Amino acid sequence: MERPSCLSRSSKMNSYITNALSDFFFKYETPRQVLVRNRRVGVVCRLIQLGVLAYIIGWVFIYEKGYQSTDTAVSSVFTKMKGVGYTNVDGEERVWDMVDYVFPEQGDSSFVVMTNYIITKGQKMGKCPELTEPRYLCNSDSDCERGIIERTGHGHMTGKCVGNTTKTCEVVAWCPVEDDHTIPDPALLMSAENYTLFIKNSVTFPAYGVKRSNLVEGIDNQYIKSCVYDPTTSPLCPIFRLGDLVQLSGFNFATIAKVGGAIGIVIDWTCNLDYDQSECKPVYTFHGLYGNPNETDMARASVGYNFRYAKHYMEDKQEKRTLLKVFGIRFDIIVRSVARKFDIIPTLTAIGSGVGIFGVATVVCDLILLYLLPKREFYNNMKFKVTETVEQEPLDEFSSEKYVSKE
Amino acid sequence: MERPSCLSRSSKMNSYITNALSDFFFKYETPRQVLVRNRRVGVVCRLIQLGVLAYIIGWVFIYEKGYQSTDTAVSSVFTKMKGVGYTNVDGEERVWDMVDYVFPEQGDSSFVVMTNYIITKGQKMGKCPELTEPRYLCNSDSDCERGIIERTGHGHMTGKCVGNTTKTCEVVAWCPVEDDHTIPDPALLMSAENYTLFIKNSVTFPAYGVKRSNLVEGIDNQYIKSCVYDPTTSPLCPIFRLGDLVQLSGFNFATIAKVGGAIGIVIDWTCNLDYDQSECKPVYTFHGLYGNPNETDMARASVGYNFRYAKHYMEDKQEKRTLLKVFGIRFDIIVRSVARKFDIIPTLTAIGSGVGIFGVATVVCDLILLYLLPKREFYNNMKFKVTETVEQEPLDEFSSEKYVSKE
Amino acid sequence: MERPSCLSRSSKMNSYITNALSDFFFKYETPRQVLVRNRRVGVVCRLIQLGVLAYIIGWVFIYEKGYQSTDTAVSSVFTKMKGVGYTNVDGEERVWDMVDYVFPEQGDSSFVVMTNYIITKGQKMGKCPELTEPRYLCNSDSDCERGIIERTGHGHMTGKCVGNTTKTCEVVAWCPVEDDHTIPDPALLMSAENYTLFIKNSVTFPAYGVKRSNLVEGIDNQYIKSCVYDPTTSPLCPIFRLGDLVQLSGFNFATIAKVGGAIGIVIDWTCNLDYDQSECKPVYTFHGLYGNPNETDMARASVGYNFRYAKHYMEDKQEKRTLLKVFGIRFDIIVRSVARKFDIIPTLTAIGSGVGIFGVATVVCDLILLYLLPKREFYNNMKFKVTETVEQEPLDEFSSEKYVSKE
Repeated sequence: MERPSCLSRSSKMNSYITNALSDFFFKYETPRQVLVRNRRVGVVCRLIQLGVLAYIIGWVFIYEKGYQSTDTAVSSVFTKMKGVGYTNVDGEERVWDMVDYVFPEQGDSSFVVMTNYIITKGQKMGKCPELTEPRYLCNSDSDCERGIIERTGHGHMTGKCVGNTTKTCEVVAWCPVEDDHTIPDPALLMSAENYTLFIKNSVTFPAYGVKRSNLVEGIDNQYIKSCVYDPTTSPLCPIFRLGDLVQLSGFNFATIAKVGGAIGIVIDWTCNLDYDQSECKPVYTFHGLYGNPNETDMARASVGYNFRYAKHYMEDKQEKRTLLKVFGIRFDIIVRSVARKFDIIPTLTAIGSGVGIFGVATVVCDLILLYLLPKREFYNNMKFKVTETVEQEPLDEFSSEKYVSKE
Repeated sequence: MERPSCLSRSSKMNSYITNALSDFFFKYETPRQVLVRNRRVGVVCRLIQLGVLAYIIGWVFIYEKGYQSTDTAVSSVFTKMKGVGYTNVDGEERVWDMVDYVFPEQGDSSFVVMTNYIITKGQKMGKCPELTEPRYLCNSDSDCERGIIERTGHGHMTGKCVGNTTKTCEVVAWCPVEDDHTIPDPALLMSAENYTLFIKNSVTFPAYGVKRSNLVEGIDNQYIKSCVYDPTTSPLCPIFRLGDLVQLSGFNFATIAKVGGAIGIVIDWTCNLDYDQSECKPVYTFHGLYGNPNETDMARASVGYNFRYAKHYMEDKQEKRTLLKVFGIRFDIIVRSVARKFDIIPTLTAIGSGVGIFGVATVVCDLILLYLLPKREFYNNMKFKVTETVEQEPLDEFSSEKYVSKE
Repeated sequence: MERPSCLSRSSKMNSYITNALSDFFFKYETPRQVLVRNRRVGVVCRLIQLGVLAYIIGWVFIYEKGYQSTDTAVSSVFTKMKGVGYTNVDGEERVWDMVDYVFPEQGDSSFVVMTNYIITKGQKMGKCPELTEPRYLCNSDSDCERGIIERTGHGHMTGKCVGNTTKTCEVVAWCPVEDDHTIPDPALLMSAENYTLFIKNSVTFPAYGVKRSNLVEGIDNQYIKSCVYDPTTSPLCPIFRLGDLVQLSGFNFATIAKVGGAIGIVIDWTCNLDYDQSECKPVYTFHGLYGNPNETDMARASVGYNFRYAKHYMEDKQEKRTLLKVFGIRFDIIVRSVARKFDIIPTLTAIGSGVGIFGVATVVCDLILLYLLPKREFYNNMKFKVTETVEQEPLDEFSSEKYVSKE
């Protein structure tokens, strides 16, 4: 007896599911609407809706390209300086090649080109008096407490106060201590203006599998040999004259060469990959990072750029060093990249959110219609059908007759 | 005859377009709604809607500032160490200035401060026995296959097994080979604790055209000369005492100075540019990157930080070098930046998407109303008007009379 | 008399507010809808809606994980090379250890491993003839204008034309000038193939407070001592053989060793932090950045990678230097990171925007229903209730009787 019942139950279930499915698939709900024939409300609402539409299409899609996804690149930068500097100090001729004036030497994206220096030759470890500056002066040994190391001093105080006329504390230090009070003016390596900088930059947009180099199509070996970057005539030449870089950053070469400074070279890869990728070209811009003496007070707290550097050698079995206080131009090559390409997700997100804003427009119009217009009660009646519930617990589930529909 | 017809047609067309336009502009649709007067449904739905509203306004707008667009900065960092170290090893006094203990010397955002070292003086190219470590020991020449270079060995094996008591393989190498088994303890340059680090950092938010420096308003030349960073009293002073940096990163100075370690200095620029840009100030935080001996096993696989460094010189026409195994603290200065500013696009996107979520709330309420309430059938009748189609192909286009509307 | 009135007014106000609130809370609007019983429209609309739903759930949520927020990491990279190179040039044996062949020495994320070199020993500052290259040749002193510095020359021209058979301009320079025409082939340091590179990388996802190291769980001291990276068998070993790196980047070792090149090591941290964070492991990939001679013409404009480097020394009280033109492999270690974690905001934004797209589906269906179907007029009547306004200014506010509702 059970199986037939079971079968009939299952066939019932089947038919129930079939019905539900066909019900689901063959029916379609669409909201009922009131069509309000009112010039003022109509015009206001249509204008609001057109405004939203214009915003979505014009701003989000066309101006901000909201239909595209974005990706930033991984990038590598290599640099190479060329050019030879020449100094003639007190009759001592000397040339400076890239090995001498670039720090570090291996072609990093951040490097310093020496333009001026204070040289202290033949320093060796020993004891000698400090500089004759106010803070190092002393009258007796008691002024120079042994072992105290001044934060800005040159060595370790021995506790003695030495000197003939002006006495200063004696220190264990690289002797003689460096005196960097007089910065050579004009800068010793003014010829740095004619050095050239070659930049190699490769960027990869991993999300789109696109790899680009700043040696774009048309920048071949022949062109590189002769070109020099110029913002208007040769904006894609990867060879930059130092003097041009300084000028384009708003610095004065004589000043920056003397005290040093820092320049940011921004390589901007803003690419729309919906076009051919050969359209994806770098744009170079230059700006001073620090040390521009014309800047606001804020940045002036610390003007210039310098660091110390030593060449060690042995002489008479003793370690000696040549200390250079190097004033130079620090270049930071900063790669900024954003590639955009059509993507379905941001497109649909923008559309979906736009539809939402459309809904806001409708709400605003409804507020006008239902609260501000003189005919608001009429529209209220048109728009709403109220269930006048007696608001008492229903006696049975289907006693819906109790509820009166008033339209 | 044709022109009048054409004219009349075009005037017809004109009037058609005018009608369509006026139809479009002077009409306005708004959905018809059922106003359900039911306490329970009403309260539940209003609470859901208020919850959504509170989420959108409170969370998305106020807490997450969804009405703002964001931008990250391009940044440059320069550093300068000050302070002098002093060692007295076996009576040999020596001072270490920034040229000696900072690698690299030019003030990068990532650099190492030497705190300890193992020095091997007077190395020259030649042949000498390997260290007396188990892996280099040998009994006869056959144990030292010529030309084999151990991955961790010091040179190129000559094939000989040399030595008096403990025999090791002979190698072509910088001789004598460095023996780095005993790390000086305590660190030779414990005085590094008092060095100071000066950080210059400039950030530019290109999207908003805002340029900031960590030398913010009020940090002038005078203040910099005397201040030392302290998280509570001087959080904006760009001068950091090394001992403080180590302590703030959770390291013990004696330990990190001995074996080396790595510290990240994070400069956090989280700026709300809806306020004045002078409110945009850096926050410095410090954390150990590696080498903290108190860390979990994972990171302990490779404790400390060291590298080798050589000073080359000529002596008696022969190239020699002084090799230093440098243990030091590596500082990585990491700039993290995000600026936010009011922008119409994220605002409208947030609103649009919020309206969408509102729609979800309505759907939930409808489900309650139409499926869970005892009066569901009544509400169904209120909400839906069903077209009872006979579902046979219509005989002619306008035979809509066949379809009976039942409400 | 006034207070009672005031009281009654305030109590009126109270009851008014109470009414408004109870009105607001006990009422609930839901749109009235037409339930269209039409197979074709129903099926089309349901399919569109199901498609939208499938897109939102399948694509946005499951495939693109739209319910997660993302964060990128701050990261630090340290490197250490091991291995010893050996050269035997004209019987002069020499080994090269990490101090000799890595630039810079302190273990940066970007460094160069020397594989070939042109050495110019004993250069000193002085006067000597230029190279016998076409561009330096001269017939008389007038060809060598004093003080002119050729961009690619080696020094400062003295104005003399010197030489016996082939005359070239004399320059003040580091003499003798370097002749780099013949690149040693095969590369002198082919043994670099067996060097190993150890990479330490720590990443921190600040938004989620997660800190990871590439020495993940299971990579302990013991394992590191013996392992070598292999993409299939040991994908997590942080020790890389140079030869493998070159091969995995698609280079030929003999070629890259001779002229140099650049390799990017990308450490990819793509982490789903909804799982346990021990699942968050790095993936290493390798690709050539520059100098691959098999590349397209574009990149060939500048093949190879080299820089110059000098070791200074004093001999007979005179500064001399050994100049090395270093050809090497430049490694750029690039950390790419994105962590994802469930977040309520993107979830709700995705849902909200999805509901908006649902709205678009409804609009499309309505267009079909109201404009394309033969029964369109019928559906129009069902959907819309038109207010037939006489469109003249209403005489009084409540003269809504004038407006006839036609359904």
